[in-house]
Amino acid sequence: MSSYADRLRALREELARRRLDGFVVPLTDEHMSEYVGAYAQRLAWLTGFQGSAGVAAVLPAEAAIFTDGRYTLQVREQVSADQWSYQSVPQTSVAEWLGEHAPKGGRIGYDPWLHTKTWVEQATRALRDKGAELVAVDTNPIDAVWPDRPLPSNARLVVQPDALAGRSSADKRQEIADWLIARNADATVLSALDSIAWTFNVRGADVDHTPVALAYALVNSDGTADLFVAPEKVGEDVAQHLGNAVRIHARDTFAPHLAGLNGKKVAADPERAVSAIFATLRDAGATVLELRDPAVLPKAIKNEAEIAGQDAAQARDGAALSRFLHWLSIEAPKGGVDEISAQTKLREFREATGALKDLSFDTISGAGPNGAVVHYRVSEETNRPLELNSLYLVDSGGQYQDGTTDVTRTVAIGEPTTEMRTRFTLVLKGHIALARAIFPQGTRGSQLDTLARQYLWAAGLDYAHGTGHGVGSFLSVHEGPQRIAPGGSGFAGGDEPLQAGMILSNEPGYYRAHEYGIRIENLVLVEPRDAPGAEKKLLGFRTLTFAPLDRRLIDLDLLTDEERAWVDGYHAQVAAIVGPQLDGAAADWLRIETAPL
Amino acid sequence: MSSYADRLRALREELARRRLDGFVVPLTDEHMSEYVGAYAQRLAWLTGFQGSAGVAAVLPAEAAIFTDGRYTLQVREQVSADQWSYQSVPQTSVAEWLGEHAPKGGRIGYDPWLHTKTWVEQATRALRDKGAELVAVDTNPIDAVWPDRPLPSNARLVVQPDALAGRSSADKRQEIADWLIARNADATVLSALDSIAWTFNVRGADVDHTPVALAYALVNSDGTADLFVAPEKVGEDVAQHLGNAVRIHARDTFAPHLAGLNGKKVAADPERAVSAIFATLRDAGATVLELRDPAVLPKAIKNEAEIAGQDAAQARDGAALSRFLHWLSIEAPKGGVDEISAQTKLREFREATGALKDLSFDTISGAGPNGAVVHYRVSEETNRPLELNSLYLVDSGGQYQDGTTDVTRTVAIGEPTTEMRTRFTLVLKGHIALARAIFPQGTRGSQLDTLARQYLWAAGLDYAHGTGHGVGSFLSVHEGPQRIAPGGSGFAGGDEPLQAGMILSNEPGYYRAHEYGIRIENLVLVEPRDAPGAEKKLLGFRTLTFAPLDRRLIDLDLLTDEERAWVDGYHAQVAAIVGPQLDGAAADWLRIETAPL
Repeated sequence: MSSYADRLRALREELARRRLDGFVVPLTDEHMSEYVGAYAQRLAWLTGFQGSAGVAAVLPAEAAIFTDGRYTLQVREQVSADQWSYQSVPQTSVAEWLGEHAPKGGRIGYDPWLHTKTWVEQATRALRDKGAELVAVDTNPIDAVWPDRPLPSNARLVVQPDALAGRSSADKRQEIADWLIARNADATVLSALDSIAWTFNVRGADVDHTPVALAYALVNSDGTADLFVAPEKVGEDVAQHLGNAVRIHARDTFAPHLAGLNGKKVAADPERAVSAIFATLRDAGATVLELRDPAVLPKAIKNEAEIAGQDAAQARDGAALSRFLHWLSIEAPKGGVDEISAQTKLREFREATGALKDLSFDTISGAGPNGAVVHYRVSEETNRPLELNSLYLVDSGGQYQDGTTDVTRTVAIGEPTTEMRTRFTLVLKGHIALARAIFPQGTRGSQLDTLARQYLWAAGLDYAHGTGHGVGSFLSVHEGPQRIAPGGSGFAGGDEPLQAGMILSNEPGYYRAHEYGIRIENLVLVEPRDAPGAEKKLLGFRTLTFAPLDRRLIDLDLLTDEERAWVDGYHAQVAAIVGPQLDGAAADWLRIETAPL
Repeated sequence: MSSYADRLRALREELARRRLDGFVVPLTDEHMSEYVGAYAQRLAWLTGFQGSAGVAAVLPAEAAIFTDGRYTLQVREQVSADQWSYQSVPQTSVAEWLGEHAPKGGRIGYDPWLHTKTWVEQATRALRDKGAELVAVDTNPIDAVWPDRPLPSNARLVVQPDALAGRSSADKRQEIADWLIARNADATVLSALDSIAWTFNVRGADVDHTPVALAYALVNSDGTADLFVAPEKVGEDVAQHLGNAVRIHARDTFAPHLAGLNGKKVAADPERAVSAIFATLRDAGATVLELRDPAVLPKAIKNEAEIAGQDAAQARDGAALSRFLHWLSIEAPKGGVDEISAQTKLREFREATGALKDLSFDTISGAGPNGAVVHYRVSEETNRPLELNSLYLVDSGGQYQDGTTDVTRTVAIGEPTTEMRTRFTLVLKGHIALARAIFPQGTRGSQLDTLARQYLWAAGLDYAHGTGHGVGSFLSVHEGPQRIAPGGSGFAGGDEPLQAGMILSNEPGYYRAHEYGIRIENLVLVEPRDAPGAEKKLLGFRTLTFAPLDRRLIDLDLLTDEERAWVDGYHAQVAAIVGPQLDGAAADWLRIETAPL
């Protein structure tokens, strides 16, 4: 296996052969996915970076990797400072950095299948201001120097039953067709893999952690669709499920198909469809409507069947996590548990449910100082034992056919310090404030973010990540458009009004670098609320996740009566939902852990 | 005096003579001022609208007036529905409405001295999409049909002493020059009247309520400046104060002067300088840097002298307001007080301080249902008596040479209802939550807005205005760039990070249409804060305004211990600062009103 230094050198040689002075390497794939198939993990191959958000820029004499506040520590551990400089977004951006560092008159390459149109426009402008040029490449130069690059997955599609989806694919396609007709358009491009999976009620296994299949689709104004997916992945059951109104094409015929849409009016989403899609349509003579992917909002607003599925998945997942926390309460104080054995055990408990399809993301199993690495992923090199008198942070989730889960618990191993308890309680107070929030329809996630931070702020503390992300139904664990985040640059998505049926995480945290990390994460469902004399339609959150909070970390003196009642009420729900699924010592343990504070 | 219908007809005839199919009438002047001289009050002349934010659009067969949530009721009372349709922003915009209503191929006029470049660009695009055209006029067609249009004021400039300004004008100009040098620029346009007043340490009396003079300025990279102001308004004292480095030119030579800047690099603020300034510079062959007016931020961040001045002005103003509230407590229950006599009395108390230069805005003196009109201004027609068992809302402020004040009190006349007390207390809880907020440096106003709304929200209530605006030092009572508002479209300004030294209002409210209005407004100063173990530099608010809150409106059962302690602490400060300025019965009254709850 070549070293990262060798790989960077090989890429630079390839760039020189192509007369390029630089190249931009995003983390994503042709579908703007967050998790990407092994074939598309070019950023990880080039740099070693394992986080879920990042970009690299390579110039002849310089190379930089761009990550956000969640990865400040992790990028320094995984990516060599010998070859790479670390850049923080949103303080800087790739476009800005290239504008400042690219050679005058330089040609900077990018793969138009891996960037949004908006990014290309911004970067083009930033470089033009500096006399440099952004150049689309026909083939990705990394692929040319990555000898053992994996092939794309050939996993078969599976049907997501209507009973779990809550609506037929024909019904969803008709909604999209009506949306097209209202806009006088002929078709819409769907390129986001979860939008395709949702629209056609199919799932796949082509990328880690998200049950989607590599595909493109066009949904037409007559309710029919063209689905571009490797035909060998479509079995008889899926073909029958899709029916005659869905025409199957080979995935690599998507671009030629777009090129034949001369004279058509086609919608595409500038945030989700890559630059190459827009360029191909434009060159074909199609009229492009830049509109948000019409599957995004109905996918985010869960229907009754999806909510029922989520409840079932959460009950099952909460029991698995509770069994793990019970096991941990016995084994960790004895010593001998480390981050890897802990996450393996947790996975076993989830697998023992018999319903686990996949983890919904790589488990964050962080002992002591590793808990402060916000998106930590343990490796053999970083593996730490769970030591007495330390904190252990575990952020994990499962993909079940009826729902996607995501939960974080912070556990004291041995005796926590006063500071740990104080700060855990401040995080908890923020978590409760958000969980209890009531707000008018139309309120955006950015308007709620401060509720979760206010108690930390008063103590001069904060966390460098958003407070909540959307979650799919047996789909992406990070799903838009809803988000709870401070708003402004760097935290896009907080501008979406929350609507009943949306699922979000509620996950404030606190991280003491090199010492410990704290995060408390439950999923919540946006629901209608009422109040006597209300003049506004109101919304609030129902908490979906059920597993005990570590009571040893709660400083009761810092809780108001209402907050204490919230914890007791939450624990009573945990006891009612998870309790009946546990036996013997685990059930006894849960009774004690969920007793009133 | 012609009727509003006649005026609209005359404007339409004038537009027809000029072959225009429409015209846009903003409220502002050539300086994007909020309060404008009588000569520039074209919107009020045309429509009758007296609010502080609005725009009209006139087409051959339709006319519309655009206002925000604050003026929903008021616009319907002041502007005739026979001629005008009412449009709400941000739900729609002038550009959107024109795009939908303008005749195909129509020519829509605008005065380029009354609109920002950004507005012109957006409106041009919106109209072009509909096949219509936006056309700059050479002279304003309203001026042609307004026979008795007032002349601009000829008030003389006065010097704002360095002792109150805290810095000399030369020092401020040098800071701007350094800023220009860092950007390799030759000069910056200053067109915002408060920026000019601040930069040159002068004040004027050309518009209502804001002590500014009609002028333009160029500050040059050598620290000199060109000030374009009617020379007869500059007396010997002001000329001496300005010194040789400031060249005085007639105001109407500003455009020709800009036209002579060929080859120069000139900064101008696209939010504050009008479209005509950019067009003139561009046509002159100057390079325009679109940057925020360099006076805006240092003007917003008050120095020690300005803060000391504000404290002195507040102590004086709080005593005047307290005397008024005492007077009201005796007279109103007897009957015979109405909105006009109340605001007249309040003005007399302010004038009796001997220091009042002007009111800082038209007093909002709203009895009963008029209190629900957010920016109400009483007239002989709308004047209401202050009736027993009702609420009276008074929002007012003074311009003093040492500071600008703005305060709202809501007072129970007779016995308030339970609902009034409950809702007053919810507003108070929000006011206290914001007043007590502690937050890290870098926090934007939009991140704090929800703190003031959360208790109203939980009861299904809200208010349709921002929570806080910036306030100047003997300048604009509404001063940017800081603001506390929900963020997103329609509430611009909440994106500015708050900094120590900024002054803002804290003014949540609740309005029950046709019944009563509640608002509690104090000014607050952003100050550094500390907390043991803090990892962030912290900020918080010091309340600047001192006048008692009506204790009869506070439902103690709804306050937490901390909130009650805040009110008691606040009232103790009122007693300490205002008490010594009052005598006899007023002093006795204040002692009772400021005793612990």
